[in-house]
Amino acid sequence: MLERFAENPIIEPSHVAPSREDFEVVCTLNAGAIQMPDGTVLLLMRVAERPKDVRQGWATAPLLDLTRDDRQITLLRCRTDDAEYDPVDPRWFIYQGQKYLTSISHLRVARSQDGRRFQIDPTPTLVAERACEEFGVEDPRITYLEGRYWITYTAVSRHGIATALASTEDFHEFQRHGVIFCPENRDVTIFPERIGGRYACHHRPVPVNIGQASMWVAWSDDLMHWGDHGYLMGGRPDTWDSGRIGGGAVPIKTERGWLAVYHGADHQNRYCLGAVLVDLDDPGRVLARSREPLMAPQADYEVHGFFGNVVFSSGAVLTDDVLTIYYGAADRCLAGATVPLQDVLGQLEPV
Amino acid sequence: MLERFAENPIIEPSHVAPSREDFEVVCTLNAGAIQMPDGTVLLLMRVAERPKDVRQGWATAPLLDLTRDDRQITLLRCRTDDAEYDPVDPRWFIYQGQKYLTSISHLRVARSQDGRRFQIDPTPTLVAERACEEFGVEDPRITYLEGRYWITYTAVSRHGIATALASTEDFHEFQRHGVIFCPENRDVTIFPERIGGRYACHHRPVPVNIGQASMWVAWSDDLMHWGDHGYLMGGRPDTWDSGRIGGGAVPIKTERGWLAVYHGADHQNRYCLGAVLVDLDDPGRVLARSREPLMAPQADYEVHGFFGNVVFSSGAVLTDDVLTIYYGAADRCLAGATVPLQDVLGQLEPV
Repeated sequence: MLERFAENPIIEPSHVAPSREDFEVVCTLNAGAIQMPDGTVLLLMRVAERPKDVRQGWATAPLLDLTRDDRQITLLRCRTDDAEYDPVDPRWFIYQGQKYLTSISHLRVARSQDGRRFQIDPTPTLVAERACEEFGVEDPRITYLEGRYWITYTAVSRHGIATALASTEDFHEFQRHGVIFCPENRDVTIFPERIGGRYACHHRPVPVNIGQASMWVAWSDDLMHWGDHGYLMGGRPDTWDSGRIGGGAVPIKTERGWLAVYHGADHQNRYCLGAVLVDLDDPGRVLARSREPLMAPQADYEVHGFFGNVVFSSGAVLTDDVLTIYYGAADRCLAGATVPLQDVLGQLEPV
Repeated sequence: MLERFAENPIIEPSHVAPSREDFEVVCTLNAGAIQMPDGTVLLLMRVAERPKDVRQGWATAPLLDLTRDDRQITLLRCRTDDAEYDPVDPRWFIYQGQKYLTSISHLRVARSQDGRRFQIDPTPTLVAERACEEFGVEDPRITYLEGRYWITYTAVSRHGIATALASTEDFHEFQRHGVIFCPENRDVTIFPERIGGRYACHHRPVPVNIGQASMWVAWSDDLMHWGDHGYLMGGRPDTWDSGRIGGGAVPIKTERGWLAVYHGADHQNRYCLGAVLVDLDDPGRVLARSREPLMAPQADYEVHGFFGNVVFSSGAVLTDDVLTIYYGAADRCLAGATVPLQDVLGQLEPV
């Protein structure tokens, strides 16, 4: 059965040095995870920061100053008694009709020999720098493919929530490949090998006029341009994933199919984790899926936090047939849990 | 100045033979347009049909029967006094939480020697046949590139409104290339030549959480896989295009830049046409744009129809420096108008 680490939470905001003296880290969450050739577990986590000193009666949004070549973070400020100010939830507010985030995120590396105790880099690894990243970079997923690590991450700006791609050989030098999925799209997981000669991924568009937030498959010849989109699966009424679903960890190859941990939320915004098995030769075909959550918010650090009642994974590592799932808890901290692969497969219901 | 054809509307539902005896054509609209090598103007228009005999007190949605290999159109019926029935507007209704279209569209060719009097093919040219086209195929745009005609069209299903690609050499045999933009995305116009070695297009994603329906640019090496997405332009508050905008006709090369006719709607759903000039070497850079509409609904056939107060173009042809704009009027019929290219360029305001 699924066992949470006794060490949880494994990474908390207080463990992470802010990128600037006048900032504080408010959330350390949603990490891509990969095991390096030397056995090291590497997490690339999202670190959300905000200015330390916000005067009473003011709201602040940290964002890129696109007018400056050095793309420094600047602060948008407004009074909370302004008629044009509307607090939405802890994550964002609206001012003069525009939605802003209360924090800005960068990505940061943490490394561990045992997968539980992590050494966190003292400085950011990948920071917002483009117009499409004006409000920050979030929720990375790491796929190792043909000699490089490919990282999909959420690029947030006033024009929408999109998914961009970067790659690296060493997690020091990165190459950016631009936005690969236009708004609104996030939770992009690239499969770790070619399937039928092509690269594949799962992604999560959010339709407006018809349809609901669902998982889709897409195909590529170069990882940078995607096409041949197809619907994969959506939420199920009256279940834990009735509200919205999206990809979680990068799919893992098993004898029975590609296994992907995904997240689902109900209409009360309670985020759980489940799993889906897709066909080895056709990742657009669902074979089996969790009827009940694999994990639901339960521990105190999952129920209470920046945005409560959330477990959200963007990375998992398989070692000796045991799956270690790394996950953001209550949008505030990082935690881990292990579960034997056979238990996950056994929990799935054929569809 | 812009002059409507004296012949308007040039194509009406009554001119078009339905695809089945038990169907009637309700709308003939939104046509891709291209001038063939022999001078013929070819329109590929959207033809919307619905069952002829709908009993009083019933609503009907024609859609593909995905359970059958031959993918025939079947009819979903529900009583209009059903508590789970909600009429939305003439275009769709909601039943048991699912949105349905009141008609199903196919694409049909019409040809003309003078660009005004059209001969309409007696049978459909391109029909819905895939799961992503369950509710029909709509709003084609035609781009001639390297020996083939490339057609982007809207693929509508219960999973969303997406854009698919097909190609042909002769408008008889078509090859389908699948969904190139996942939901919600439509109004995709592919540029008629490579720019800096790559293919480019404008598209229109619809963000949900942050941002609004806006025009973006994307790039491709093969027309089937797209990436490097970037924001192009959005609606402007308190103008005719404040509500939503999207691409219209395929961009036309001029000395000053690529000229694209686009549509904008205000918050009362009044659809007008405007124009935008983008950089010859960078179609992601706006040079100038219509402050006032190039065309607003005015004629009776534009104001009254299936969905009134709409002029919507998906195709234009340039001949001897005169632009002929083909457009859907009030979502019911097809009309045309001419305007000297210099007048369009002169109307634009640098940004």
